[in-house]
Amino acid sequence: MKKIPLLLLGCGGVGRQLLQHIVSCRSLHAQQGIKLRVIGVCDSKSLVAASDVSVSELDDRFLLEACRIKSAGSSLSTLRSFGECQIYGHSELPQRVIEIASLLGKATGLAVVDCSATMDTIDLLTRAIDLGCCIVLANKKPLTSLMEHYDKLVSQPRHIRHESTVGAGLPVIASLNRILSSGDPIRRIVGSLSGTLGYVMSELEDGKPLSEIVKAAKSLGYTEPDPRDDLGGMDVARKALILARLLGSRIVMDSIKVESLYPEEMSPSKMSIDEFMSTGLPLLDKYINDRVQKASLHGNVLRYVCVLEGSRCEVGIQELPKNSALGRLKGSDNVLEIYSRCYSQQPLVIQGAGAGNDTTAAGVLADILDIQDLFN
Amino acid sequence: MKKIPLLLLGCGGVGRQLLQHIVSCRSLHAQQGIKLRVIGVCDSKSLVAASDVSVSELDDRFLLEACRIKSAGSSLSTLRSFGECQIYGHSELPQRVIEIASLLGKATGLAVVDCSATMDTIDLLTRAIDLGCCIVLANKKPLTSLMEHYDKLVSQPRHIRHESTVGAGLPVIASLNRILSSGDPIRRIVGSLSGTLGYVMSELEDGKPLSEIVKAAKSLGYTEPDPRDDLGGMDVARKALILARLLGSRIVMDSIKVESLYPEEMSPSKMSIDEFMSTGLPLLDKYINDRVQKASLHGNVLRYVCVLEGSRCEVGIQELPKNSALGRLKGSDNVLEIYSRCYSQQPLVIQGAGAGNDTTAAGVLADILDIQDLFN
Repeated sequence: MKKIPLLLLGCGGVGRQLLQHIVSCRSLHAQQGIKLRVIGVCDSKSLVAASDVSVSELDDRFLLEACRIKSAGSSLSTLRSFGECQIYGHSELPQRVIEIASLLGKATGLAVVDCSATMDTIDLLTRAIDLGCCIVLANKKPLTSLMEHYDKLVSQPRHIRHESTVGAGLPVIASLNRILSSGDPIRRIVGSLSGTLGYVMSELEDGKPLSEIVKAAKSLGYTEPDPRDDLGGMDVARKALILARLLGSRIVMDSIKVESLYPEEMSPSKMSIDEFMSTGLPLLDKYINDRVQKASLHGNVLRYVCVLEGSRCEVGIQELPKNSALGRLKGSDNVLEIYSRCYSQQPLVIQGAGAGNDTTAAGVLADILDIQDLFN
Repeated sequence: MKKIPLLLLGCGGVGRQLLQHIVSCRSLHAQQGIKLRVIGVCDSKSLVAASDVSVSELDDRFLLEACRIKSAGSSLSTLRSFGECQIYGHSELPQRVIEIASLLGKATGLAVVDCSATMDTIDLLTRAIDLGCCIVLANKKPLTSLMEHYDKLVSQPRHIRHESTVGAGLPVIASLNRILSSGDPIRRIVGSLSGTLGYVMSELEDGKPLSEIVKAAKSLGYTEPDPRDDLGGMDVARKALILARLLGSRIVMDSIKVESLYPEEMSPSKMSIDEFMSTGLPLLDKYINDRVQKASLHGNVLRYVCVLEGSRCEVGIQELPKNSALGRLKGSDNVLEIYSRCYSQQPLVIQGAGAGNDTTAAGVLADILDIQDLFN
């Protein structure tokens, strides 16, 4: 039985779902000769670790209780009374994680799994890589920081996986890595990588006003609490940067041309959410509608996409043929079209749900299983 | 620099293209710290091996000459005069391959790569697995033989890759394996896995007669020399069996319900190719056309697909919504729709060119790079 020790950073929706998947896959993984040993779990304030990380782990009852506690909005530190464990507060957390990584990294391997959504994990992740650990990320931020940080994170290319940073569990990164390793040059990628913007753009085709579509999406829970977090395009830009760097571009966020769906004067610092929804947004309806109609004269539709081609990396509205994979997109699916030597006339297309804790955590779990050959 | 010794079985179009890809990816792979050492190449009659497989390999000049010779229809044995190597004839071949596998398998790892199209490699492949080697297959036949053979081939699940057996280089098997290892239960797969039949079925929509479409496809080189090899559906059935077994079904070819597009009385034993094309095929036009029209009354189109669901595995014509990924299929692309817990409303869709030596060999090469962590 191969044992993979795991340390989880981040106990939000994805992290908790990952713990639940790990528990529910016990017998499946045992059939494959694998045991995932969760030796520690962190949130932003605490680390809860097994009493002796070399030999013991947090058991399933403990992991499920951690999920329950975090769902209820409590702190991990309340687990002290639940079972045998070590608990460290915020100030000791980084040092203790590094000690665990030193102890296990080169000896048996340790997978440090980042399901948080902060920049703060970069130092821990780069130290973990230096100490021989593997890292698995659902967190986009470390990969979209300075080039110098990125270089460190990918310095051992076999020791990092980050499928769930783009398109949730969709096999985007894995497929691109296969194409790259086979020497098939990727010439162009066009992707609709925001479920929210995919939904908004496809609804526009029916002539509905943008403001009504966004209102409906907000009430359906499709958008962030402030829909401008989706409409500004920065989340798509972050995914585009991850793809661009995977293809070898040495660029930073500021090099990406990002088209926001709302103008500067409606930004959060100048308008409340309510004001934006009731007053700002309707002012954009006519402009967007005119663009939709103009596109349809050429048999095209508007899509909010990232386009990567050579050194170009852009994020914004594009006119695309109604009859392409992207043009036919409905609902909140993500779509990626990849053009290469092997896929030159027609692209390789990957399409499906690109959001949600379940599929994001499933992508992280598949990444963990994928690195199993690196463990003793 | 990690060295991966390779032994290639099969020097047809895919095998030759693989050798060319390996040669042209030298600097790319060196950047990744990998060197692929081709220590032997077989066709059905000969094995050409490096003079000492433990330390030497066939150099790039030699590999390209092997490609040239095989393209010209000559035998590998003519390479004797080209450079230092060992050449073994048909009778010694299996024994010598097993000796090489014994020597290298457990010591450094050896990847035995099957780009042939015969059942004859099963024994060598299963022996290689027993000896600690990895196997990489583009050849569908060993995986569609008896269940007992299949069990042996996959007895070390991390030691086998076979992406190019379904959909050429499309990331079908890799994606299914990711879904499976994350514990996301696959409920249904519907796939159009024959470029030829995909083309034929989509052309039927425009009201063209089947016989004319097949004639055009034949003259464009889209079909096998005898188009009945495509129209009979056995190639699709073989791919369906590989997928079904990957999902855990313990079935054999005979358990699959296969719908042939031509009736028994037009089979190759009863009708020549010319007779089939000129006399047999046109007799099928009306029946197929009626089915196309009936489907279109319900907003559907006909597709030749495999359907896997629970223990069901069928291959044949299905009426599918015009507005689904499969229904929109044009040309010779392959499409796979995967439904699971994570992809329940809308499927995960993988689409793209599913044939051709270039993309098939690229899939094999990606598989080889994917097992690199198993090598010393």
